[in-house]
Amino acid sequence: MLKTVSGGVCAAKGFRAAGIHVGVKTHNPEKKDLAMIVADQDCAAAAVFTTNVVKAAPIHVSRAHLADGRARAVIVNSGNANACAPQGEENAERMCAAAAKAIGCRPEEVLVASTGVIGQTLRISVIEEGVPQLYDLLEHSEAASDAAAHAIMTTDTVKKEVAVETTVDGKTVTMGGIAKGSGMIHPNMGTMLCFITTDCAISPEMIREALLETAKVSFNRISVDGDTSTNDTCLVLASGLAGNREITDKDGDYETFVTALKELCTRLARMMAKDGEGARHLITCTVSGARDEAQAETIAKSVISSTLTKAAIFGCDANWGRVLCAMGYSGEQFDPDQVDVSFASSAGEIAVCGKGRGLPFDEDLAKKILSQDEVEINIQMAEGDGVCTCWGCDITYDYIKINGDYRT
Amino acid sequence: MLKTVSGGVCAAKGFRAAGIHVGVKTHNPEKKDLAMIVADQDCAAAAVFTTNVVKAAPIHVSRAHLADGRARAVIVNSGNANACAPQGEENAERMCAAAAKAIGCRPEEVLVASTGVIGQTLRISVIEEGVPQLYDLLEHSEAASDAAAHAIMTTDTVKKEVAVETTVDGKTVTMGGIAKGSGMIHPNMGTMLCFITTDCAISPEMIREALLETAKVSFNRISVDGDTSTNDTCLVLASGLAGNREITDKDGDYETFVTALKELCTRLARMMAKDGEGARHLITCTVSGARDEAQAETIAKSVISSTLTKAAIFGCDANWGRVLCAMGYSGEQFDPDQVDVSFASSAGEIAVCGKGRGLPFDEDLAKKILSQDEVEINIQMAEGDGVCTCWGCDITYDYIKINGDYRT
Repeated sequence: MLKTVSGGVCAAKGFRAAGIHVGVKTHNPEKKDLAMIVADQDCAAAAVFTTNVVKAAPIHVSRAHLADGRARAVIVNSGNANACAPQGEENAERMCAAAAKAIGCRPEEVLVASTGVIGQTLRISVIEEGVPQLYDLLEHSEAASDAAAHAIMTTDTVKKEVAVETTVDGKTVTMGGIAKGSGMIHPNMGTMLCFITTDCAISPEMIREALLETAKVSFNRISVDGDTSTNDTCLVLASGLAGNREITDKDGDYETFVTALKELCTRLARMMAKDGEGARHLITCTVSGARDEAQAETIAKSVISSTLTKAAIFGCDANWGRVLCAMGYSGEQFDPDQVDVSFASSAGEIAVCGKGRGLPFDEDLAKKILSQDEVEINIQMAEGDGVCTCWGCDITYDYIKINGDYRT
Repeated sequence: MLKTVSGGVCAAKGFRAAGIHVGVKTHNPEKKDLAMIVADQDCAAAAVFTTNVVKAAPIHVSRAHLADGRARAVIVNSGNANACAPQGEENAERMCAAAAKAIGCRPEEVLVASTGVIGQTLRISVIEEGVPQLYDLLEHSEAASDAAAHAIMTTDTVKKEVAVETTVDGKTVTMGGIAKGSGMIHPNMGTMLCFITTDCAISPEMIREALLETAKVSFNRISVDGDTSTNDTCLVLASGLAGNREITDKDGDYETFVTALKELCTRLARMMAKDGEGARHLITCTVSGARDEAQAETIAKSVISSTLTKAAIFGCDANWGRVLCAMGYSGEQFDPDQVDVSFASSAGEIAVCGKGRGLPFDEDLAKKILSQDEVEINIQMAEGDGVCTCWGCDITYDYIKINGDYRT
């Protein structure tokens, strides 16, 4: 039923995008650093933001602009987080004003996001000077979404872009997203930005519900380094051009929409975890047989967040003791003598721990399994029927290198 | 009043120690792996153990043996954690029985601890065969404490040993400790072992109180990697040979004793943080002006546990934005616009953030300050009078290397 399509944030009807270099990233003029996504008309809109007490200025501005549940466009810069920076809110408002002027709408209809270094004054003049050119480049095309996806990247090594199609009320509904996120990523929204567009007709209340429900089971289930950023933002704009009857209740159409949105966001979340700073392995941890989903989630998050487990996976070392250890300090109560653990990947699956005790296993096969790009840690408990999957990555020399001199 | 003395766990009257290689560490016959500390007579004793739900077998055994608040000796192996291992409790009991047989006491008078790899069967036969030789080597000497301190090390690069003298009830009271701990270290007892002896006369109830009070402000305020181990143990044995009137209440003598114990344990805790796996910097984070001590502690722990902050310190990068970010996701509410941050070391002090905003600062001086072995992150808030200091270390290539192939 769900079909993957191309086009990213330009896949859905009624959206144009663009991305260029204007000079926020001063070190590298090759790197794009300003993006806009503009709807042809007013959209229902919703967002979720970081839970960090220290919030970047654009978060405050976007939250205020979203008070009516509607928006027309979003402007995003990379290279500077505009967090803890002088004139932060003033500069975030000026970004909105510059975009609004080009589009011909009110500044309150524009949302804003930033990502990059904390604590430095945003070069607002280069952004203001660049907006007219950026506006002229707006297109409803694959290339345009690609440019925007690149313009929001910081230490990301690959762009993150997905689009899917589903059927709501007999109409084809398309939704697509671009995202960035590589370091400072942890459950409750890491330094991640994600912008999603859809042509589904849906009320502001329902799109907000759908996004909250989705973020919990996608972005909030990944971790790169346990650091929750000051800037995390996930926005959805819904143009309504698909022609379906507007979703205004949690009916079957809503469920169809949420299913597609969860799939879209889970794919973007996995892409972020896999592209964790310096990462060589995507780690997927599934906990089954927990008391309930919440317990499964807490334990799975604890495992993917464990620095020692991450280091073991980096070394392709089947050190399951660290998995049990991380389960044990998760804060959840359970019977360790009823825990089974196996490692799996495209190279096979191997049981390493049964009923809380080490099993004899083939070290060579284990090494081969853990040498693949994507590895699974599967945990079976005997507490109940709770299941949850979370995603993380290994910790590598490159992570340290990237983060030892990110600022300078 | 407090005087540093030599002798470690043999500094106090009535204790002998020894450490040898028996073959638990199979890879390196040069490395000691079995230690004993034996009191000449029955002692008041107390312990604190890991909060991890997955507890190693020796924890269960020691806890049971401590039920009466008294003990005579402790036997410790390194190289194998005896956690999640077949015949775990049986083997921990056999270690106690072997020691008891040599000493001529009951097995219930012996406490036991292990540290090393999780999930592998302990080579109990080499331990049992080694105990008589170990017993013969017991001495009340500096060299004996040194041997025991080495025998409990795993990835530690330096031994941790401290002893101090104070005056209780007009008598000289001595206390000394040895500790190990380098990875898997986090508040609530990391993979750390610590054994303290004192000749103070003190009741089992009061020594237990004193240890609980002390652990909270020393070992529970350090973090290396956020992983809380399955084996953490801190034991105190009090021989009573100092000749002071026995401490049985929280009176002035108790306060004097606790002050000395806190100093001893804080020094050992700092040594552990400084010797964090692969660490190049000891990081001391002091939060002042918090609502209360608990808030200051939560925030300071969040900062020293932040992987990104640790990576910045590794790179000698004054990236204070990550400090604010880590404060912000600590779970505590506070006004970020009232936060000042400075970095300090033996090379000077530099203010980098004032009222939540970046200050212009001399990058060369900042680099010089952060290039020292011991650096301070000083945070001033405007919420109240709460102050707390926590200790951590940077994260380095060597941490990844050590933990990428620790098991194999």
